[in-house]
Amino acid sequence: MFVKQTVKGMRDILPAENEIREYLLDLLKSTYRSFGYSLIETPCMEHIENLSSKQGGENEKLIFKILKRGEKLGNALSGSESDLVDSGMRYDLTVPLARYYANNASALTLPFKAMQIGPVWRADRPQKGRFRQFTQCDIDILGDSSCNAEIELIHATTTFLDKAGVRGCTVLINDRRLLKAMMDYCKFPEESHGDVLIILDKFDKIGSEGVRKELLESGYTQESVDCYYDFFDKLQKSEDTLSFCAETLKEVLPEGTGENLQAIISTVRELTAAEDTKFVFDPTLVRGMGYYTGTIFEIRAESFKGISIAGGGRYDRMIGKYIGSDVCACGFSIGFERMIGALIEGGFDIPGRAEKIAVLYRRSFTLSDVASLQKVCNTFRAQGKRILIQQMNKNLGFQKKQLSEQGYRIVEVASPDEAAQALS
Amino acid sequence: MFVKQTVKGMRDILPAENEIREYLLDLLKSTYRSFGYSLIETPCMEHIENLSSKQGGENEKLIFKILKRGEKLGNALSGSESDLVDSGMRYDLTVPLARYYANNASALTLPFKAMQIGPVWRADRPQKGRFRQFTQCDIDILGDSSCNAEIELIHATTTFLDKAGVRGCTVLINDRRLLKAMMDYCKFPEESHGDVLIILDKFDKIGSEGVRKELLESGYTQESVDCYYDFFDKLQKSEDTLSFCAETLKEVLPEGTGENLQAIISTVRELTAAEDTKFVFDPTLVRGMGYYTGTIFEIRAESFKGISIAGGGRYDRMIGKYIGSDVCACGFSIGFERMIGALIEGGFDIPGRAEKIAVLYRRSFTLSDVASLQKVCNTFRAQGKRILIQQMNKNLGFQKKQLSEQGYRIVEVASPDEAAQALS
Repeated sequence: MFVKQTVKGMRDILPAENEIREYLLDLLKSTYRSFGYSLIETPCMEHIENLSSKQGGENEKLIFKILKRGEKLGNALSGSESDLVDSGMRYDLTVPLARYYANNASALTLPFKAMQIGPVWRADRPQKGRFRQFTQCDIDILGDSSCNAEIELIHATTTFLDKAGVRGCTVLINDRRLLKAMMDYCKFPEESHGDVLIILDKFDKIGSEGVRKELLESGYTQESVDCYYDFFDKLQKSEDTLSFCAETLKEVLPEGTGENLQAIISTVRELTAAEDTKFVFDPTLVRGMGYYTGTIFEIRAESFKGISIAGGGRYDRMIGKYIGSDVCACGFSIGFERMIGALIEGGFDIPGRAEKIAVLYRRSFTLSDVASLQKVCNTFRAQGKRILIQQMNKNLGFQKKQLSEQGYRIVEVASPDEAAQALS
Repeated sequence: MFVKQTVKGMRDILPAENEIREYLLDLLKSTYRSFGYSLIETPCMEHIENLSSKQGGENEKLIFKILKRGEKLGNALSGSESDLVDSGMRYDLTVPLARYYANNASALTLPFKAMQIGPVWRADRPQKGRFRQFTQCDIDILGDSSCNAEIELIHATTTFLDKAGVRGCTVLINDRRLLKAMMDYCKFPEESHGDVLIILDKFDKIGSEGVRKELLESGYTQESVDCYYDFFDKLQKSEDTLSFCAETLKEVLPEGTGENLQAIISTVRELTAAEDTKFVFDPTLVRGMGYYTGTIFEIRAESFKGISIAGGGRYDRMIGKYIGSDVCACGFSIGFERMIGALIEGGFDIPGRAEKIAVLYRRSFTLSDVASLQKVCNTFRAQGKRILIQQMNKNLGFQKKQLSEQGYRIVEVASPDEAAQALS
């Protein structure tokens, strides 16, 4: 009847890993705070309407849905699936942020720099390093339409990753408007741009020929597909890919898109102290979410086999859907699980780790002896020491071995007074 | 289509409140860590079987249930409600902790001191200060059957509450075995003990006569009800209520129950530095959860109109339901929302709050000027300063007023170099 495993695709986090998580989350919060971001919190559940609005792209297929309750459920049981549900678990922190701003606009001032850290849920097929509940760490700037927003989001994120010891980061940067221009240039029909992007985004998974095949099979014309591949051939041979795109697509690209990308890339390059961080224009970068309207970016780390550990972009038209008038917005999200998984695999250790002490007392200690021992330890706890008090087990050697493995310095005491000496 | 309000009964947390929350959570974590607790994390979702096992008492009626997905949902749609559901949101952190230990026993050593902080969900009727998603902060000791576990849990919790500035705490202490003995003594039938306790627990809400009426209406004999009220009359007139209970119930009370309570109360009293914290035996304390097997405790704070802000107890038979053999366990949980709500109402301010600086630059600044300004600020950010950079709004006076209200010191700069002087 009782099931001891976690719900499928979710995981328990053990103390040793959690020490690292807490260290990194503290570092992340202090770094982002130093850039003036305010930590906010939204509920983990959102109205099903907000989550099923085509903003979330493929993620909308992965929502954990909350069953209605009471009378409403009774009425619904005779109907279809959508009648049964009134809310769902958030699949990212951006949709909730937009709702948060809309709900609290009168108490917030623009530009608003928000930081949000919390779990999100996707009912995806579980696989190594991919879970159905995972933590995201987002920063967003609402109300700044200039590229200073992009620059500062990227700069704050790479500053944190550098401090956390993530080496060899490449920040890929593109613009949704440039992708749209590419599709217009190749005469893919406007209404299918979203579907074409989903196919183009599979480049990493199924390769160039796989993408070509899927485009043709999906019914796009030979002419459009050839045009796209011809464009890409020339692009790959060009010396300055961004200039090539801006020049070739100039009839269909909104003015200033190329210059904007150029300004972002050169400024973040200049601001960044970490020498092994690269900033690259990547015209193949798509990002899955339906809500992006401009710049998009992603970070891959060499040391992590090139997996994506952060992603973001500009979404100037999402908040307007809640309040009627648009508020420009841009954000960057770190996939905390992926980052920490790779760091731990690389043998990460917490710098300046606080000392942990295990005080082991004799089995002959009375209740009053233990209370006296607590009092002695309280003095040192007040100084910031972490002190675990344990009765000596019958197998003391094994107990000491286990505690040592958990990082404890061991102090054995025969009387409460001995602890005072040993701890000072 | 888009809904800007939160899901019913849930709430957004604004930056100012979250600064206080973060301060208190950091204080809580460092206090509990100083006592040797390890922070763990469990998923927010648990198997529906684990949540619907009569362990959670009334809370099991309040579960947010997760709808099945895909083919399984299709098969289930023709069935009843329970067919539709495969998991639910946790309503506390204790059921997940028991499952966590069972799932990871080989990687953990006993006694295991766990700390868990996270949201829980109850589909309760929303009311002032009571939400459908709220944060709990739990500490638990697994594998210590002695009353040292109770003593240390209570001591660590009151130590934190004292540090957090919660004044006038009363810790109420009772034992489920004593409640059971009372019911045996009055000859309430064994199988209805749970139901009787639910009625007795309404004492605060419906008063002595209300309880009497409900007991009789529920079909318990006049004799049992009279016996209970007679017992309570005598108890209230006795000088030492604990001794009275132990003496009167000695035929039906497990040996040592009274002495155990006495030892816990006198020891925590001795350990506690805070002079305004009281420790009281309360034979009317019930605690709703079905899983308690021994000592139970609860904290009410005078400054918070006597509402309960923490509760816990011993649950020696829960883990056994997952792994077949019992592991003794005891825990204490702080209701973080209630505590913080009352603290904020009392005008709480963070001691030693870090300075926040808003650097406002002229509208004439170029992109490159802003980048230079970022560089200057980075030097001070690395020293731990929190620096927000903003362009001057057209209505500068209003902008400065708003930032001041948010606690920012304001620095206006006409050139990037000016910032260096102003910040140092």
